[in-house]
Amino acid sequence: MRPVAVAAIGKTAFGAFPDRDLRSLAVEAGRKCLEDGHAGPGQVEALFLGNFAGPAFVGQSHLAPYVASGLGIQGVPATRFEAACASGGSAFFHAVSAVAAGLYDLVLVLGVEKMTSQPTPKVAEILASAGDLGGEMRAGATFPALFAMIARRHMHQYGTRREHLAAVAVKNHANGARNPQAHMRKVITLEQALAGKPVADPLTLYDCSMVSDGAAAVLLAPLERAAEFTSKPVRVLGIAQASDRFALDEKEDITTFPAVRAAAEKAYRMAGAGPADIEFAEVHDCFTIAEIIATEDLGFVKPGEGGPYCAQGSTALDGARPVNASGGLKAKGHPVGATGVAQICDVTAQIRGQAGDNQVRRHSLGLAENLGGSGATGVVTILGAA
Amino acid sequence: MRPVAVAAIGKTAFGAFPDRDLRSLAVEAGRKCLEDGHAGPGQVEALFLGNFAGPAFVGQSHLAPYVASGLGIQGVPATRFEAACASGGSAFFHAVSAVAAGLYDLVLVLGVEKMTSQPTPKVAEILASAGDLGGEMRAGATFPALFAMIARRHMHQYGTRREHLAAVAVKNHANGARNPQAHMRKVITLEQALAGKPVADPLTLYDCSMVSDGAAAVLLAPLERAAEFTSKPVRVLGIAQASDRFALDEKEDITTFPAVRAAAEKAYRMAGAGPADIEFAEVHDCFTIAEIIATEDLGFVKPGEGGPYCAQGSTALDGARPVNASGGLKAKGHPVGATGVAQICDVTAQIRGQAGDNQVRRHSLGLAENLGGSGATGVVTILGAA
Repeated sequence: MRPVAVAAIGKTAFGAFPDRDLRSLAVEAGRKCLEDGHAGPGQVEALFLGNFAGPAFVGQSHLAPYVASGLGIQGVPATRFEAACASGGSAFFHAVSAVAAGLYDLVLVLGVEKMTSQPTPKVAEILASAGDLGGEMRAGATFPALFAMIARRHMHQYGTRREHLAAVAVKNHANGARNPQAHMRKVITLEQALAGKPVADPLTLYDCSMVSDGAAAVLLAPLERAAEFTSKPVRVLGIAQASDRFALDEKEDITTFPAVRAAAEKAYRMAGAGPADIEFAEVHDCFTIAEIIATEDLGFVKPGEGGPYCAQGSTALDGARPVNASGGLKAKGHPVGATGVAQICDVTAQIRGQAGDNQVRRHSLGLAENLGGSGATGVVTILGAA
Repeated sequence: MRPVAVAAIGKTAFGAFPDRDLRSLAVEAGRKCLEDGHAGPGQVEALFLGNFAGPAFVGQSHLAPYVASGLGIQGVPATRFEAACASGGSAFFHAVSAVAAGLYDLVLVLGVEKMTSQPTPKVAEILASAGDLGGEMRAGATFPALFAMIARRHMHQYGTRREHLAAVAVKNHANGARNPQAHMRKVITLEQALAGKPVADPLTLYDCSMVSDGAAAVLLAPLERAAEFTSKPVRVLGIAQASDRFALDEKEDITTFPAVRAAAEKAYRMAGAGPADIEFAEVHDCFTIAEIIATEDLGFVKPGEGGPYCAQGSTALDGARPVNASGGLKAKGHPVGATGVAQICDVTAQIRGQAGDNQVRRHSLGLAENLGGSGATGVVTILGAA
């Protein structure tokens, strides 16, 4: 396997854009990425597209050639990858694998979702399709309910408190407020977070990520060719995707995600690094409890210590190990299929030192964690300065 | 790149199975395939799942870990590939690439679709999502209408006649009648085909493929390990996936599919073979005109000669180069996501000499062609005795 580099990145802003369709968002991110790498669509040897539910949100299937033709990419493989909320991470994983193996030199990885054209109950129904339809969903457990159960169990098992959940929300809102491309740019206080409208107890509105439109793109190249496209190549040091049992009721312990643990273990091994080496991370905070568990599953802290770890400020923008400096899914926004690719863009921008007001202090080694459904898919990527 | 073999195959029957759900079909095909290869789920290093529209047909997204957990596969990448009617072929293409590149040894490729639980108008609406929603579909052009325009233009440009279309239907019905796993097992006459109920002129009911439930699976291994799983390994000699402009109105010529031509050219080059070497083929006859065009795009005959080529018996089961000996999408059935993988199973069974009453005479080198949408994705595979 040969070393692979992120040679270019491009993102749309995340938000609610009633006058934008899915293709225009994807094309914007793709063009920005190609411009960032001074590359043309004719150089792209394959398009790997992460999208969760375009067919349900906007009625369009067969999205990869649909987007490819909008970008002027033809005659090469254009493929859609779907792994629920880890669709973007999964497309990125398979693309990195393909470039590492020498199947292609230049691969464009795109993630996109257009969610806000549907009314809220329909959005909830579409998101629920990522869970176990015949079990969890038939029992009425949509995703906020599933993660509320996870949070409740984490509280019971480890003494995690609502203040810990709220601390994640406060931190990510603060980071999002500094990010010009974030969907939610509003600082909140701990009191506001705790007084949020209940969604599924113990989760309030402030514990839940945003329903957003947006797209993100990454151009991959073999490391030896990266200098053709950028003066600041970022290397993919480790990456893995893993799966787990599908429904919560099939799991032995719902306070941990074995797919994330398995993927992290492989990614650390590939990178020759351990949790202690990771300077900052973008993790999948679809709900605040998911960020707490991510810091545990990634080995930053022991099981049960994720809540206090955030509450004491360790994961703040100026903390020892910033987590979700971008604002995370919570404040940056969560256009599902775009999320995993956007995380790679954000970690890359940090390593390049181009993260603006969200720049972290130590930024040579970063990690991205993308979670699908209630944990049946996990993708972990470790990126470093080349 | 190292040589890759089809080490095992497994299929469900294709048909309308009101008492079967998507997961049970996929699990049946996966288990049959693992049994065929004397392999266990714990040996599978990745699951590549082709599925077009499970979320729309049965409400379930995140299908790869959903099916994987049903098969007892965990802790490894489980990913869904969607490329409209070429979803199965695309999953197979990416899996072959990954094994060839040494990323994995054993990959299970599964294709599945559960279509018959929805009423016909809903099925038509879901299938239409593979076309251009903002253009073709807004103009009322569902797939039968698009392929009727293609047929009409082919008739105008080359003198193709309705008798030629009907000859494809008659042949594929005859082949399907001999196939115990086919959805439609009924011999029809040329007169019956010509007198079929009009669907979109010039296409009648007999020109259209079936709406079916079904699943198919293939176990891939490096050729050097194939003997662990089978005494009759089949080698993937050439394979490619390509994309093209998305909508018919963006194309210069609607009587040919450039994505198929591009994929075929690459696959022939990889295999070191040409059209004249191909002894038999399974092609994407979603409509009879598509089979006629496939024989032209694959280089079996010149543009415009596909109709007479079939009508004169060259592609019959006992013809010089049998096409769709299985009955094709027309008679075997077309559970969309399963189709591309089922073609690989059928070509493999022929090469092994295990195709029963559908066995072709010369069976050392076969080809499979899988088409997505109205041609925006094409996948071509060439298989041979190892």
